[in-house]
Amino acid sequence: MTGRPPGSDRLSLNQATVKRLDLAQSVDLCVRHEIPAIGLWRDRVAEAGLRQAAATVRAAGLHVSSLCRGGFFTHPDRAERASARADNRRAIAEAAELGADTLVLVSGGLPSGSRNLALARRMVGDAIADLVPTAQRLGVRLGIEPMHPMFCADRCVVSTLGDALDLALQFPAESVGVVVDTYHVWWDPRLAAQIGRSRGRIVGVQLCDWVVPLPADTLLGRGHLGDGVIDFPPVVAAVRSAGYTGFVEIEIFNQDVWDAPADQTAATVRQRFASLLD
Amino acid sequence: MTGRPPGSDRLSLNQATVKRLDLAQSVDLCVRHEIPAIGLWRDRVAEAGLRQAAATVRAAGLHVSSLCRGGFFTHPDRAERASARADNRRAIAEAAELGADTLVLVSGGLPSGSRNLALARRMVGDAIADLVPTAQRLGVRLGIEPMHPMFCADRCVVSTLGDALDLALQFPAESVGVVVDTYHVWWDPRLAAQIGRSRGRIVGVQLCDWVVPLPADTLLGRGHLGDGVIDFPPVVAAVRSAGYTGFVEIEIFNQDVWDAPADQTAATVRQRFASLLD
Repeated sequence: MTGRPPGSDRLSLNQATVKRLDLAQSVDLCVRHEIPAIGLWRDRVAEAGLRQAAATVRAAGLHVSSLCRGGFFTHPDRAERASARADNRRAIAEAAELGADTLVLVSGGLPSGSRNLALARRMVGDAIADLVPTAQRLGVRLGIEPMHPMFCADRCVVSTLGDALDLALQFPAESVGVVVDTYHVWWDPRLAAQIGRSRGRIVGVQLCDWVVPLPADTLLGRGHLGDGVIDFPPVVAAVRSAGYTGFVEIEIFNQDVWDAPADQTAATVRQRFASLLD
Repeated sequence: MTGRPPGSDRLSLNQATVKRLDLAQSVDLCVRHEIPAIGLWRDRVAEAGLRQAAATVRAAGLHVSSLCRGGFFTHPDRAERASARADNRRAIAEAAELGADTLVLVSGGLPSGSRNLALARRMVGDAIADLVPTAQRLGVRLGIEPMHPMFCADRCVVSTLGDALDLALQFPAESVGVVVDTYHVWWDPRLAAQIGRSRGRIVGVQLCDWVVPLPADTLLGRGHLGDGVIDFPPVVAAVRSAGYTGFVEIEIFNQDVWDAPADQTAATVRQRFASLLD
């Protein structure tokens, strides 16, 4: 390993980028590649056991930039909604135990059988309102992540950073913010303005590239920085100008990346981050 | 054929819905199914010959609700840009000859090799400015169609109705307007507000449904009205409230629809339109 390039001290590797590794392996990988922070996923945390996961990360000296993820609030059935909220309260407790900077929330899509987008969006606000007291009590910041409009129907009715921010602004800044993921928001002509509006509310930043053509599974059309069309430096400069001092995660859902050796992936993540953003 | 349901006198069939038919066959299909208007595509018009196409449509008593399409302005090379503009001037002349209500413009994506979205968007405005005198002289209205943000990189950098309208408002209303296609804009929380702002500028309306999951080719993820998640009546009510009195096209890109017998497709188009919108 050569010396850490300047700026890379705010680099974080989201576990989803090395999907095949378990929590301990992901932590080791970060340590080997001098990546100082990690974004964790709940399934891998559960697999390791929450206390053990927290201990492993702490012993390695890693910062936890996010826990992925809560949300999926938009159930048509009352009991399912209650169950989703209970699960989100558990996720908040996990984020607190792990010392995560934010619990990432993906809202959920249209309720099954419904075409009522406005209703779905209200359901998201209601659910977050229900979670805020728990978040406040445990000192966790919820991060509302807008997802690309192509996921609006089936995954996330919060489609732009502006919409996510409008939701977040209904709640105290210490408990609810927004997560900026370039894959979801890069196309938005209002992105720079909305990042500016988000001062004090950005609780997470995730980067990956938009690669064309989209693959059959549009969830997996993400690439290493530089492999696609996104112009990263202005986005990162904008979040910094808006006061964000936290870690910048690399989160890549891509079958080829998952199939590559994890050390190669980590090296590419570091190299691309340094060459584009340092 | 039973009697035409009320409201269906503003129904138009876009040729792309019956992709396998040539112009004369599409015209015959509309006549057989008492669909009073048609949206034409330039390749099928060219195949028939422009004058012959215009004569065929006129002889059948069909209205031409749109000609698809011009645009694709965002070439990095000056000669290519000039060539695209020349092709668009030919498209305007074709729209005039056919008596089309609008020439639909799809802007084009990021210039090859570029990550500069703002530049691409300026190139679109510049190109339209260049075309307006021709459109004015020939009495053709250019219709800027926003496309879904998932096509921003490779097909259309105009991603929302608001963006399309902001572009259109730079030019005279008799020459430049916007096209509202539900597939591209249904997800937008600002859709109703932007349709309201579009008073006097809506020059075309196209409907098809958003079907989940998306197919491998996201261009083909469109369905018959009612097969997906879009709530059509509020959109159609909003464009009517905004003063749009023109035809409403059904335009469905979908391999299964293309593989179905055209008469079955036309019957489904009429039936769904009537049951949802009359």
